[in-house]
Amino acid sequence: QDWSLQDNATRIERHFRFPDFAAALAFVNQVGALAEEEDHHPDISFGWGYATVSFSTHKIKGLHENDFIMAAKVSRLTRE
Amino acid sequence: QDWSLQDNATRIERHFRFPDFAAALAFVNQVGALAEEEDHHPDISFGWGYATVSFSTHKIKGLHENDFIMAAKVSRLTRE
Repeated sequence: QDWSLQDNATRIERHFRFPDFAAALAFVNQVGALAEEEDHHPDISFGWGYATVSFSTHKIKGLHENDFIMAAKVSRLTRE
Repeated sequence: QDWSLQDNATRIERHFRFPDFAAALAFVNQVGALAEEEDHHPDISFGWGYATVSFSTHKIKGLHENDFIMAAKVSRLTRE
C-alpha cells in the first residue's frame, strides 16, 4: 500500500499496520517528531494496530511540494 | 463540549482543542498511557490544535461500561 490522493486531490494519505496499540503509538510519535522538525504537520488517525497519516497544505486547501516531501520522509521511517 | 454518541450509539467520542500540534500530541500520549494501563484502547484522530478520542467495544460492536469508564478517565486528564 502506498500514498493515495483523497478529497479531490487536496490531500494525500497512507495507511500503516502494526502488531498492537503501542507500536502504532510509537510510530505516531516518530511522525510527530518529524513534523515538528520540518514544521509541517499531518492529520493522524490511529488505534489498535493501525495508523493513517494524511498531509495537506491547509493555507492553499490543497497539495504543495512539502506534502510529498513529508510523505516520502514518513515512508522512510517504516523502512528503518 | 462533552462526549457524544456516534454511529447509532455504538461508540462515544469527544473533541479536544489545543494551542498547537505538540500539545495535542502530548495529550494523545497521556491517553495512550492510560489506555495501556487499563488495556482498553481508543481510536484517536489528531493534528495541529485538536484531538478526537473515540471509544467502542469492538467485540460487541457497541458500547460497554468500560467505554464510559475510560471516557471519564480521559476527561479527567484535561482537568489536571
